[in-house]
Amino acid sequence: MSADETRVEADLEVIEAGCITDVPGIAAAGVSAGLKKTGALDFALVVSESPCSCAAAFTTNRFQAAPVLYDRDAIAADPTGIRALAINSGCANACTGPEGLEDAREMARLSGEAAGVGTNRVLVMSTGVIGQRLPMDRIARGVKLAALALSPCGGHDAARAIMTTDTRPKEVAVRATVAGRTVTVAGMAKGAGMISPNMATLLAAIFTDAAATPAALEAIIRRAVERSFNCITVDGDMSTNDTLLLLANGQAGNAVIGGSGDDGHAALLAAVSYVAEDLAKKVAFDGEGATKRVTIDITGARSREEARQAGMAVAKSPLVKTAIFGRDANWGRVLCAVGYSGVPVVPGQVDMWLGDLHLVHLGRPHDINEERASEILAVEDIALRVDMGMGDESATIWTCDLSHEYVSINGSYRT
Amino acid sequence: MSADETRVEADLEVIEAGCITDVPGIAAAGVSAGLKKTGALDFALVVSESPCSCAAAFTTNRFQAAPVLYDRDAIAADPTGIRALAINSGCANACTGPEGLEDAREMARLSGEAAGVGTNRVLVMSTGVIGQRLPMDRIARGVKLAALALSPCGGHDAARAIMTTDTRPKEVAVRATVAGRTVTVAGMAKGAGMISPNMATLLAAIFTDAAATPAALEAIIRRAVERSFNCITVDGDMSTNDTLLLLANGQAGNAVIGGSGDDGHAALLAAVSYVAEDLAKKVAFDGEGATKRVTIDITGARSREEARQAGMAVAKSPLVKTAIFGRDANWGRVLCAVGYSGVPVVPGQVDMWLGDLHLVHLGRPHDINEERASEILAVEDIALRVDMGMGDESATIWTCDLSHEYVSINGSYRT
Repeated sequence: MSADETRVEADLEVIEAGCITDVPGIAAAGVSAGLKKTGALDFALVVSESPCSCAAAFTTNRFQAAPVLYDRDAIAADPTGIRALAINSGCANACTGPEGLEDAREMARLSGEAAGVGTNRVLVMSTGVIGQRLPMDRIARGVKLAALALSPCGGHDAARAIMTTDTRPKEVAVRATVAGRTVTVAGMAKGAGMISPNMATLLAAIFTDAAATPAALEAIIRRAVERSFNCITVDGDMSTNDTLLLLANGQAGNAVIGGSGDDGHAALLAAVSYVAEDLAKKVAFDGEGATKRVTIDITGARSREEARQAGMAVAKSPLVKTAIFGRDANWGRVLCAVGYSGVPVVPGQVDMWLGDLHLVHLGRPHDINEERASEILAVEDIALRVDMGMGDESATIWTCDLSHEYVSINGSYRT
Repeated sequence: MSADETRVEADLEVIEAGCITDVPGIAAAGVSAGLKKTGALDFALVVSESPCSCAAAFTTNRFQAAPVLYDRDAIAADPTGIRALAINSGCANACTGPEGLEDAREMARLSGEAAGVGTNRVLVMSTGVIGQRLPMDRIARGVKLAALALSPCGGHDAARAIMTTDTRPKEVAVRATVAGRTVTVAGMAKGAGMISPNMATLLAAIFTDAAATPAALEAIIRRAVERSFNCITVDGDMSTNDTLLLLANGQAGNAVIGGSGDDGHAALLAAVSYVAEDLAKKVAFDGEGATKRVTIDITGARSREEARQAGMAVAKSPLVKTAIFGRDANWGRVLCAVGYSGVPVVPGQVDMWLGDLHLVHLGRPHDINEERASEILAVEDIALRVDMGMGDESATIWTCDLSHEYVSINGSYRT
């Protein structure tokens, strides 16, 4: 599989203002259950007309939240029978012990009952403050309201209902031809802080009407995550709740995709990868307090993993992030981060660019044009590139700057 | 060697307002060479009457600054003949290629000449902006002024001259009985940002009049660094210039300390460890923009290294640091950081305290007293403790909070 495969967009049609309910057979709702003090939407329900094949990627944090533990078991028990997904914001149901797991189970049970899809066929997600029990009376109210509000146009409300410190919903939908059929792939995600993935990050759900086995979806999700959610960071903090679900309800009627050699596998991988990358970038660029969209390209690496490692060190560096916020072309901090990333880079082989400005050549200052650098840093999109001069592999990382607003948001998150 | 050995202070006398020139045979100066725009002190020279045995710990960043490369060679060439140390602030002489190495060599040569100690017996350190050449005319001026100003009372000036974003100088001096003689150990350090050590961090120099071989000093410095500078972090960024020097001029006249079995070895280790820990804490607590002094104790670990790993994850977490800044007892973020630290902690075995408040017991909320938590978070010294319930090992980590001021300082560091 070539490195370019996941970037093929030739056969993709991006749906304008698309959302998850653009996928045939998917209905959704987003309602206010009173979990957020502001009265904003805080409970989402998504239901599929037909059972879905499912694959998931979860946080590798040792403190896995109750919904993560619940979903893992539910998917293992019935990987082709999932019918619904219930998500609340305002409370993460993490670090809540066995009681929290019971709450997650009850949330799934109530949702399955209200949606009429069976009590064991619902996955759950929670996001918000860690260490507080779910207020089950409000969850129950959310379930009732959402079941009544379910609609084939409810995707945008659902995407809004899962937001916490996000400033905007994150949604995308594409159409592709998969094994001779038109297939829709659409996803939604939330996340702005505690973002630093490993395997999967934050909450994201991708729906498609393609027909595929759980094993095929599993392979596709691993591949897509590696080049999307695993390549973003806001603050280096890996959440207890990170979950990415991929659900396929098969309504497109294509021949079921099994192994990677099957007709349609590559096309579905490309579509899912596009959706995953788009959502991941939207999360990174909506990082808490972000004023800049930062794209870091690491080239000339010996392996993709080393490129990712070096790029993530740059993306996580508070010094790099504050310099970008302050529009200061302090490129030494970028090299410094590459230097401590753990990749055995050789300083005398390294080149670096800020936008089109070739700042460093073979480890030494090259075209240090402060005026041009200031121009480049004045716009919202910032591109950094470091060539390590060690090989032919590369990786792209997406992140944001670190502003006063990040400190304000996180100094008073619970108040 | 027991874990308590480095904390033995019974035989130590801390010298009030002590500084490096409290060490017999050490003269120092701090002058203004015009490297800092503000006109503040920016060049320090320290000279020993007699040649010093020397050991050092350097940054593990792949982009090692020119003075690091120079010192490494100089110490290897003559580990018992070092006579002086020249330090400038305002420019790090890092990422400056072969020319930068020549500049470091010239700075050492000029200093040795002016101090009359030979041109190959001077170590150099630089701190400040990365990627700019040393302004050698100003360095030359600094050398001249400092050589004239050398004084047995110049320690405080030297400690001021090496500051960058530090809000106060970092100095300490102690007396101890080593192999029957009274020995003084004193040190100075600088550092407030780009602080996240591995092997050694920032700039620090510890002087003593004890007599010891370079090998003995090497063993002592490794041991002391592991429990001091390697246990602090401000922002997780490991500098290109981190250097810790330990210089012993032998003027105390004790029998030369060689191996760890020698008389006086344990006492010298205890004194150096005290000085190193004191300087390290001063650096951590003077972190850029710090409003809180944060001490993180990890207990119940299987190994000291795992305890350190978990503690450093907590100390580096921007979410934990901003919550402490905002006086928000968001303890879930602490557990979350332990959970992604890489230590295979079992949630149901973990306890946590904020000060004397037992917040989490066996992974679940315990005594959640928000009022008491607010009281604890209102003072300047914050103590967190996490017991992992896995074993008997422990580690202490020192850090600070993350405030608006950190963003301000680092958004405009070069301007």
